[in-house]
Amino acid sequence: MSPAPVVTLLTDYGLAGEFVGVCHGVITRVAPEARVIDLTHGIPRHDVRAGALTLARSLLYLPVGIHVAIVDPGVGSARRAVAVGLTDGRILVGPDNGLLWPASRLAGGIVDAVEISSSQYRLEPVSATFHGRDIFAPVAAALALGVELADVGKRIDPATLQTLELPTPCQRDRTLIVEVIGIDEFGNAQLGADAGALQRIGAAPGAELTVCASGGELKVRLGRTFSDVAAGQLLLHLDSGGWLAIAINRGSAAERLGLAIGDELTIEHRR
Amino acid sequence: MSPAPVVTLLTDYGLAGEFVGVCHGVITRVAPEARVIDLTHGIPRHDVRAGALTLARSLLYLPVGIHVAIVDPGVGSARRAVAVGLTDGRILVGPDNGLLWPASRLAGGIVDAVEISSSQYRLEPVSATFHGRDIFAPVAAALALGVELADVGKRIDPATLQTLELPTPCQRDRTLIVEVIGIDEFGNAQLGADAGALQRIGAAPGAELTVCASGGELKVRLGRTFSDVAAGQLLLHLDSGGWLAIAINRGSAAERLGLAIGDELTIEHRR
Amino acid sequence: MSPAPVVTLLTDYGLAGEFVGVCHGVITRVAPEARVIDLTHGIPRHDVRAGALTLARSLLYLPVGIHVAIVDPGVGSARRAVAVGLTDGRILVGPDNGLLWPASRLAGGIVDAVEISSSQYRLEPVSATFHGRDIFAPVAAALALGVELADVGKRIDPATLQTLELPTPCQRDRTLIVEVIGIDEFGNAQLGADAGALQRIGAAPGAELTVCASGGELKVRLGRTFSDVAAGQLLLHLDSGGWLAIAINRGSAAERLGLAIGDELTIEHRR
Repeated sequence: MSPAPVVTLLTDYGLAGEFVGVCHGVITRVAPEARVIDLTHGIPRHDVRAGALTLARSLLYLPVGIHVAIVDPGVGSARRAVAVGLTDGRILVGPDNGLLWPASRLAGGIVDAVEISSSQYRLEPVSATFHGRDIFAPVAAALALGVELADVGKRIDPATLQTLELPTPCQRDRTLIVEVIGIDEFGNAQLGADAGALQRIGAAPGAELTVCASGGELKVRLGRTFSDVAAGQLLLHLDSGGWLAIAINRGSAAERLGLAIGDELTIEHRR
Repeated sequence: MSPAPVVTLLTDYGLAGEFVGVCHGVITRVAPEARVIDLTHGIPRHDVRAGALTLARSLLYLPVGIHVAIVDPGVGSARRAVAVGLTDGRILVGPDNGLLWPASRLAGGIVDAVEISSSQYRLEPVSATFHGRDIFAPVAAALALGVELADVGKRIDPATLQTLELPTPCQRDRTLIVEVIGIDEFGNAQLGADAGALQRIGAAPGAELTVCASGGELKVRLGRTFSDVAAGQLLLHLDSGGWLAIAINRGSAAERLGLAIGDELTIEHRR
Repeated sequence: MSPAPVVTLLTDYGLAGEFVGVCHGVITRVAPEARVIDLTHGIPRHDVRAGALTLARSLLYLPVGIHVAIVDPGVGSARRAVAVGLTDGRILVGPDNGLLWPASRLAGGIVDAVEISSSQYRLEPVSATFHGRDIFAPVAAALALGVELADVGKRIDPATLQTLELPTPCQRDRTLIVEVIGIDEFGNAQLGADAGALQRIGAAPGAELTVCASGGELKVRLGRTFSDVAAGQLLLHLDSGGWLAIAINRGSAAERLGLAIGDELTIEHRR
């Protein structure tokens, strides 16, 4: 017996209401054998970039399958709904607003794309506000059943898909200007810079860096894990997604530094 | 191979504690092949009507199965625990406090009902406060295994089941007095009125309606989807469940208007 | 067909981010047939004792399987990562910080234990901060596939495992000094005392006890279930986990009494 097809879901629906449960119901009605995995439903509402970053850093840990992503401020407007086939066999399903772009690139690129707003597999009547239930879930379920990508919608040119650029740090000499691109439940703040950016300012593990946030200037050690510093101490490190992050061992860096997504920090490696 | 039996769960347990996980465990111990779908666990605590409305608007999107609903302020008291067979083959399981009523009606009506407080399938000893674990989950699992409804409890007359009436708007000429019956995570407020009520005050899509909330009088467009109005603007529309709703494109109507469940709004269609 | 192997997850990851979804993904990649049950992800961050108590009171309601528990303030430090085989066939997987101890004892004791930090089944490279993804999930999945405990790590002496003592009440004559060991979403406060402790102060159901909290002295009835007292009234009872608990019928005892985990209460049975 071959393993059950996998459908994963990433949305900004939250878990307080029944939106996610209804999507599970719709998928299971169409594809009873599919395994549905909730990647997360906690993307900040309408934050397309946060959703795109989360999908990109998670995708390769998920089984090859049908990956639905819904962060869709333009639901019901003229924005397209799409399904996108990747070189590694994965299919991404969601609105064409850049949400799927970084993950598509990371997984090797796009082979094929279809517009699914009028898919024969959608639920009728399509509501104006809940395309997760009426379009994305049933089309994903059809794909999980083995329906060909070309048969769930109308072929479009992948070159016309909406792109979304990932944040990159500004560098001046030995200083990085970085953006807060994510804050997790523990108050760890993910910054728009990676190992390469650290290298370019000559910062190796153990280095003491000068962080300039709204509250003033701080010395912060570049470490490897939370417990490299004492409880309550700040730490810069490369997080499990490969991004530079600022954290407090057993505390919340976002709270201490008053950080919000989109804020800028300056990180300097003084000689 | 026929598809796995489906058990769905709707509760007010929330996800912070282990209540939901323990119910999954109990079901899987009894019925290892059953697929368990979390419809939602975010019903406001003890809000039987909110739970009943959520179940009613979701049920037909779920596979036919065993549908457990638990919003149970009277747990441990004399209120009955029941399982109810519907004409379309679904079985609803929960407390007999009206929670199951609107969904039962919507799905075509009740064929058969049993009282399950002393079911042979319950876990012993039954705790006084966690009937989800000790009664509802194991009885649902027995039903998922194929045990007959009549064998999980003691037959009762369906006419004795607790009813629960759905909210209907008060109409005076071209004015509706409606109740806020639900608020979702996005701050969209669901109102106790449907397409028929709008028709009765002569309000067609595009109409400008006068909404009277505690904060004063506002002109609000009757639209189709959020993006029919500019970002930050109010909108009335029929939501994905068929209810009239008031929303703000990319904002929270509940917050802006200071709405809470149970509040009344006046909606007037002036000539 | 034998039932699918079961993997359960208990963490302090919360559900806002993608941590839990990524663990599901990793498990499903390795063991596509495994059933993954979320016991809870709402353990207060880094509260090892709360996680240990939750696991202990839930474990016997779960199918026999692989039980992952992650509350891991020492992630990335020298603390060991372990898998522990119990006499009843269950295997617990998590950090060796006491988290697994009470459940192990409750389920009959430990047969065998291995250190898994360098397991051949871990994901490479292992991040410093997300051992759920890189060590615990893939090792649990290997065990779910049927790999022997001895083959997923390096055997260690069970006697060297970190222990964790459960709270016990202090008794003076007919008075108990008890600790608040948990607070659920409803504001019910679980206290570190059980039926035996009540017996020792001669308190039978129906007794009126004197509770001394920070706010002063209160008379509280020892009942069986919430509805034994009027709405808004305080109640002491043995909860569904067997612990003494203080609750308010249709209200929040924690809020009313200003209780937090770790607080002490005095409960006196006056003659």
